[in-house]
Amino acid sequence: MNQPNDNLLSRQTRLFEKLQLAGVDALAVNAGQNFTYLTGLNFYRNERPAIALFVPGKPVTFIIPNFEASKAEAVTFPVQIFTYEENPSLWHIAFEKAIAALNLENSRIGVESGELRVFELRLLEMAAKNAAFPSADAIINSLRVCKDNDEIAAIQKAVDIAQEAFLATIKRIKIGMTELELASELTLQLLLAGSDVEIAFSPIIASGPNSANPHATPSERRLEIGDVIIIDWGARHNGYISDLSRTVYLGRCDPEMEKIAKISEEATIAGCRAVRPGVAAGEIDRAARDVIERAGYGAYFKNRTGHGIGLDVHEEPYLFGENQQILVPGMTITVEPGIYLKGHGGVRFEDDVVVTADGATVLSNLPRQLIAIHL
Amino acid sequence: MNQPNDNLLSRQTRLFEKLQLAGVDALAVNAGQNFTYLTGLNFYRNERPAIALFVPGKPVTFIIPNFEASKAEAVTFPVQIFTYEENPSLWHIAFEKAIAALNLENSRIGVESGELRVFELRLLEMAAKNAAFPSADAIINSLRVCKDNDEIAAIQKAVDIAQEAFLATIKRIKIGMTELELASELTLQLLLAGSDVEIAFSPIIASGPNSANPHATPSERRLEIGDVIIIDWGARHNGYISDLSRTVYLGRCDPEMEKIAKISEEATIAGCRAVRPGVAAGEIDRAARDVIERAGYGAYFKNRTGHGIGLDVHEEPYLFGENQQILVPGMTITVEPGIYLKGHGGVRFEDDVVVTADGATVLSNLPRQLIAIHL
Repeated sequence: MNQPNDNLLSRQTRLFEKLQLAGVDALAVNAGQNFTYLTGLNFYRNERPAIALFVPGKPVTFIIPNFEASKAEAVTFPVQIFTYEENPSLWHIAFEKAIAALNLENSRIGVESGELRVFELRLLEMAAKNAAFPSADAIINSLRVCKDNDEIAAIQKAVDIAQEAFLATIKRIKIGMTELELASELTLQLLLAGSDVEIAFSPIIASGPNSANPHATPSERRLEIGDVIIIDWGARHNGYISDLSRTVYLGRCDPEMEKIAKISEEATIAGCRAVRPGVAAGEIDRAARDVIERAGYGAYFKNRTGHGIGLDVHEEPYLFGENQQILVPGMTITVEPGIYLKGHGGVRFEDDVVVTADGATVLSNLPRQLIAIHL
Repeated sequence: MNQPNDNLLSRQTRLFEKLQLAGVDALAVNAGQNFTYLTGLNFYRNERPAIALFVPGKPVTFIIPNFEASKAEAVTFPVQIFTYEENPSLWHIAFEKAIAALNLENSRIGVESGELRVFELRLLEMAAKNAAFPSADAIINSLRVCKDNDEIAAIQKAVDIAQEAFLATIKRIKIGMTELELASELTLQLLLAGSDVEIAFSPIIASGPNSANPHATPSERRLEIGDVIIIDWGARHNGYISDLSRTVYLGRCDPEMEKIAKISEEATIAGCRAVRPGVAAGEIDRAARDVIERAGYGAYFKNRTGHGIGLDVHEEPYLFGENQQILVPGMTITVEPGIYLKGHGGVRFEDDVVVTADGATVLSNLPRQLIAIHL
């Protein structure tokens, strides 16, 4: 989302407050969602480091390739820019200059531990030899975890685009197509329906026995009569993603699959109904898992019930039983319990839900039952 | 590419030899291209770590989510698997068990410094408190930098798919389209032409003044009569990518753009002609840069001339002047000198080239001149 300058400044101000409260002197962010969230700029995450350093009361400080300097010069908040040329053995100089300019040699520099790569950490460590590099994950997550109205509207739009693409795609399913071909068709339909070019993630198409794996990658397996297919897909709108799953069957359906689909549907409903402010994330997991356990399939639902969504496909809060994190209005999550019978097949119905002031709104509205594909 | 078991075993054997030669006890690889290259398995790189540990003479050791264990159990080489559940505060236990089983507490564990993330490093450090974690980048790069015939054939196919998609896309260019819409159209055409679902990278569409930025990201800018547009795109086939650029103009063309296009074309040709075994990577950069400098535009070509391609869009060898790395048959590189006039526009013609026993083969064959789009 192109952010007005005021919005960026307010995010930076909130970040500075949180850093000071946590006793952290600086935040180092590499190219990626947090970089864009805080600066409005897009840099590629590749072998050339692009780092933004945030220090309360100082200009935002960029360490970037020289040939990309014009990107950073275009911002309207105060910045200082340190650039490097193409020879990697000299990149450390730009890091040393930036650390010296900010007086960070002996400081606490927070890092995104799930994003920053080892070579970026090493360059920072070389430049700030006496600094500590604590994880700033909690600080960054707390900034992004509650979505404002514009962000929720973008997620709703990403849900709408995804649903339109799904309906167009299932009409095109044919016996003999490979999972990869169907994934390609769905990607194409996501673009036609208006997704950002970088869709949310490469769709999961898991057919027949492959559907027993919750994180299958699409294969050369060809679709057959009687297959169930778990389709897990999402669109992106203005940077924000949707993440949905539905299960379809081709022509006829195995009775046990019908049975576990019913249970899985009820588990998704129970999970969605449990979402409200003040409840722990783990409660949603338990509400959904209870349904599956009571039906005798507890051993076949091993992964968590869901996760936060936003600029990233997976972000806080994570819905696993032990998670005491309290749900707050503006959090957006998936609810996606499933049942996976190894060697046989699986089912999953995944919806996107936003926590509201007095409950929750489910953003997706495709039917939650097994969808028959008539051939 | 689905690798036969023999191929994986030979890669692992070569890795073990290189580790022993370098005095490194183990290699730790996270989810990504190297994981797949060495094991044939696809894991998602997300907040759940998926780590493979390679120790000469020991089974390949996986640290992965419990619900994904079946993926790793399916391999046919010797493995041991340590799994964890969904609560992140307990993940360190699986790491500790794996490190203990491999006796790595006091060892040298090589890491991919451009790939491994800080939280994965911290989990390894916690488990192997007295270990050192040197960069193993040179070891991994030396394994992958020379492509075998199957890999080169896959890259050729990715070039062919990309060229077909480009020709279909430029017929659809219309005044008033946004850069993002054109990027979406090109992505769609890549899928229709048969690219893997995960295309090489999101296309760069840089029009009018935006083309002066070699790493522009597509924007909401609408195409106008007289624009030059740099299109930088690639397909993926069996995991291997192509990476091409061409420059087109809409209706009419500014004379200075025509002039720099001629120079840029000659620079690409000079770069391609310089490619042969035994030459340093920096020589290719100098051959291309000389053409641009002699024409008086040296100040407007600041980035390197190219980079290796393969499973990754950017990999070794990198073509910058100081790089002494010697080209060897089987290396596959881009040659992409450009001229970028700030506030005005830029041009670039990028080809993919493979080093052969006695010279080089250019894999791409689209015209290298400015392509007129008649409206």
